[in-house]
Amino acid sequence: MSETKNIQRDILPEPTLRRLPWYLAYVRLLDNLHVETVSSTQISKELNVDASQIAKDLSFLNIKGKTRIGYDVHSLVKELDNFLGFKKKHSAIVIGAGSLGAALMQDVGLTQYGLNIVAGFDVDSKVIGSSVCNIPIYDIEELAERQKQYNASIAILTVPVEHSQAAADIAIKSGIKAIWNFTPFRIKAPANIVIANTSIYAHLAIIYNRMDLKK
Amino acid sequence: MSETKNIQRDILPEPTLRRLPWYLAYVRLLDNLHVETVSSTQISKELNVDASQIAKDLSFLNIKGKTRIGYDVHSLVKELDNFLGFKKKHSAIVIGAGSLGAALMQDVGLTQYGLNIVAGFDVDSKVIGSSVCNIPIYDIEELAERQKQYNASIAILTVPVEHSQAAADIAIKSGIKAIWNFTPFRIKAPANIVIANTSIYAHLAIIYNRMDLKK
Repeated sequence: MSETKNIQRDILPEPTLRRLPWYLAYVRLLDNLHVETVSSTQISKELNVDASQIAKDLSFLNIKGKTRIGYDVHSLVKELDNFLGFKKKHSAIVIGAGSLGAALMQDVGLTQYGLNIVAGFDVDSKVIGSSVCNIPIYDIEELAERQKQYNASIAILTVPVEHSQAAADIAIKSGIKAIWNFTPFRIKAPANIVIANTSIYAHLAIIYNRMDLKK
Repeated sequence: MSETKNIQRDILPEPTLRRLPWYLAYVRLLDNLHVETVSSTQISKELNVDASQIAKDLSFLNIKGKTRIGYDVHSLVKELDNFLGFKKKHSAIVIGAGSLGAALMQDVGLTQYGLNIVAGFDVDSKVIGSSVCNIPIYDIEELAERQKQYNASIAILTVPVEHSQAAADIAIKSGIKAIWNFTPFRIKAPANIVIANTSIYAHLAIIYNRMDLKK
């Protein structure tokens, strides 16, 4: 990766990072249908995103569209996949192997997006010692020790809300670099820890409210 | 609900709707610990949201804080729960009973947030006719017919990305009012249909990128 590329990567805004996977999903479909080229105007029509925005988002990538032809579909898929980090393996652990946690351990989709779940941790003696899709579930008390072996960088947090902060603290102490927080609790963490909040329940509030408006 | 309240509800901005469940998660913890009152300053410190923003967000609710005392915790929990729609039952179907879809069918958390999943639909003969946590899985071809019985308002979309639009179209035809889209595809739908996108894979791109920055 060139120095210029790193600088570009540094300033990548979150909205761009949210849109790039949409483009990827769409151009991957085209690629599967053996479509060879695609213009930002076409992507724009399909995804309802401004064409100039798409061109701007894609300018962060190491790929150029050709005038009146557009982007090479296959190269665009590869470039997006690499750029978004989906082709690299990122080791992760799940903390809280309940219904949602176990679900994520089973989700092959995550593997396709570069996430490699290596272990689960829980406090419940009924699940400790068992496994989900060959991924072992250990006692949370073993986390620090097991981390020496796994050295996972991402902790997926799917514990009950009242244990969120304590579980995050344990994860951070064991060397975790990022916390993917599925609880509705706002985790506090040192500035060098990446926190991503995916509170699926909060999305329900938005759905309910918008449905009421459209009645 | 008074007319004024309805007007307030109409203009509720999405960022507010995203923050209110955070407040709920926190004050519910306090309630469980039998804490009686909480100020917006306290919530602010705990959740790292500006106190004036919290007061503004909570002003949409039918609850008033008392000067120098703050909000009554128990009332705030109840009011937030009701206001966010978590206490009403919303019928939902899952389209695509694969790993993520089946996971959501098992997640008791969703029930606690007012989502009642009544049926799943799939194309795979291996899962059609089976059930997950007593929720039956039917052939997707039966969706329209089954909807006459269920009259679900929300479709949870967890199909492979290439089937997203087709599955959404079938759901909308059968009378679905809202689509909770877990695929990375941008669904097109008439203006009266609520679309909420929860592309968990897109969050991975953000995590990977931010981790690279902090290296």
